Amino acid sequence: MSNQDIPTAAISRLVTYLRILEALELQDVSRTSSNDLAERAQVTAFQVRKDLAYFGRFGTRGMGYTVPLLKRELMRVLGLNRTWNVVIMGVGRLGQAIANYPGASDYQFGYVGLFDVNPELVGQEIRGLTVRHADDLAGFVRTQPVDLGFLAVPPEHAQAAAQTLVAAGIRGVLNFAPTIIQPRTHPGSSDPTDEWKQVSVENVDFLAGMKRLAFYTLNPSLRPNEIVSEHPKIMEE
Amino acid sequence: MSNQDIPTAAISRLVTYLRILEALELQDVSRTSSNDLAERAQVTAFQVRKDLAYFGRFGTRGMGYTVPLLKRELMRVLGLNRTWNVVIMGVGRLGQAIANYPGASDYQFGYVGLFDVNPELVGQEIRGLTVRHADDLAGFVRTQPVDLGFLAVPPEHAQAAAQTLVAAGIRGVLNFAPTIIQPRTHPGSSDPTDEWKQVSVENVDFLAGMKRLAFYTLNPSLRPNEIVSEHPKIMEE
Repeated sequence: MSNQDIPTAAISRLVTYLRILEALELQDVSRTSSNDLAERAQVTAFQVRKDLAYFGRFGTRGMGYTVPLLKRELMRVLGLNRTWNVVIMGVGRLGQAIANYPGASDYQFGYVGLFDVNPELVGQEIRGLTVRHADDLAGFVRTQPVDLGFLAVPPEHAQAAAQTLVAAGIRGVLNFAPTIIQPRTHPGSSDPTDEWKQVSVENVDFLAGMKRLAFYTLNPSLRPNEIVSEHPKIMEE
Repeated sequence: MSNQDIPTAAISRLVTYLRILEALELQDVSRTSSNDLAERAQVTAFQVRKDLAYFGRFGTRGMGYTVPLLKRELMRVLGLNRTWNVVIMGVGRLGQAIANYPGASDYQFGYVGLFDVNPELVGQEIRGLTVRHADDLAGFVRTQPVDLGFLAVPPEHAQAAAQTLVAAGIRGVLNFAPTIIQPRTHPGSSDPTDEWKQVSVENVDFLAGMKRLAFYTLNPSLRPNEIVSEHPKIMEE
């Protein structure tokens, strides 16, 4: 894949299409089309075709897509057909909820280490893993490959915890704290340091769904019709 | 506000713009523009202006926007300037994480009731609220106004729990379970029942961030430059 200009919004939409395909598969629907996907995702059919075209040719012209096939292809594109070794930093209520969220294992996100600084949590067993002290992360990563780090610490500690993950060599950070993780930069510059240049960060807006729900509950007449259709549209997260 | 055709994607983008404005405010940036918002949200400036135009005239032509003012206006549009009384159905790890997530109270989402069916949880005190049995929801709603219900039950119970919320008269449902809530329909029809016609449902894709992170960690050359800029772009959730 070359370094073309693929907008991040296209990646978010691929995630939405994948969720739609999963819902269709559960409903035993075996075929779909760019028009159908577009309606459910509330975008244009042109947008669907353009988003997919970044990654290859799927489906047959005029024939649409086979649901399980397109689902498998999108999983491959997104990197969900391989194993991801994940550590969770912060295993209070939120970190434990993440560790136990059903479905993550369907995508082969495997939790290999849990870390915290709270002495009441360190040493405890959660999902078969002993919670380790955050100071032991770097040593742990030397003995066990780790691909991703999920941050579930209080917001005031999120930036420092992200730095700990990156310093240990972890190249993907998913931040669940209500704050924005900033790459560390060279002093007096907006250029990230060499180690941060390698890092992908995603900041989860945990409250986004609440905000959209507030809007639609206040403005029921503006709700999309799809919400009350047989196969409700899946919201882009 | 009339029943115009406002796409749900526009509402998702308003939520993104709001998060950007909050980040700017924290950085003491007092002015922004549609170009600036567009770059951070990875959309076009035309899109930003169009999204805002659904809801009125903000800012001054050629002068851009005042950050705190536009933030306040977006909060008003989204309905985040009023109190929302919320019950949580399911207070296992995920429900407790939601109840304790920092930031929800900034938007005046107030938890007024917690419900579960697990005898080990019913009667327990969480955040000053005694967990009640789910069977007591209807009676509770008669004594205390409730606007929204957040679902944090196992996926196999989510549809039934949503029905319990709706039957109790709750008109907004936010589903955190890894499943899609379907409105109850008239038998043999895709028409929702009268009570479901009133209901707004949002399904949170809790795993969306993980999927995007997998993609960008696998394809670091496709990461947007904004991620490593001084003010990293906020991902649309």
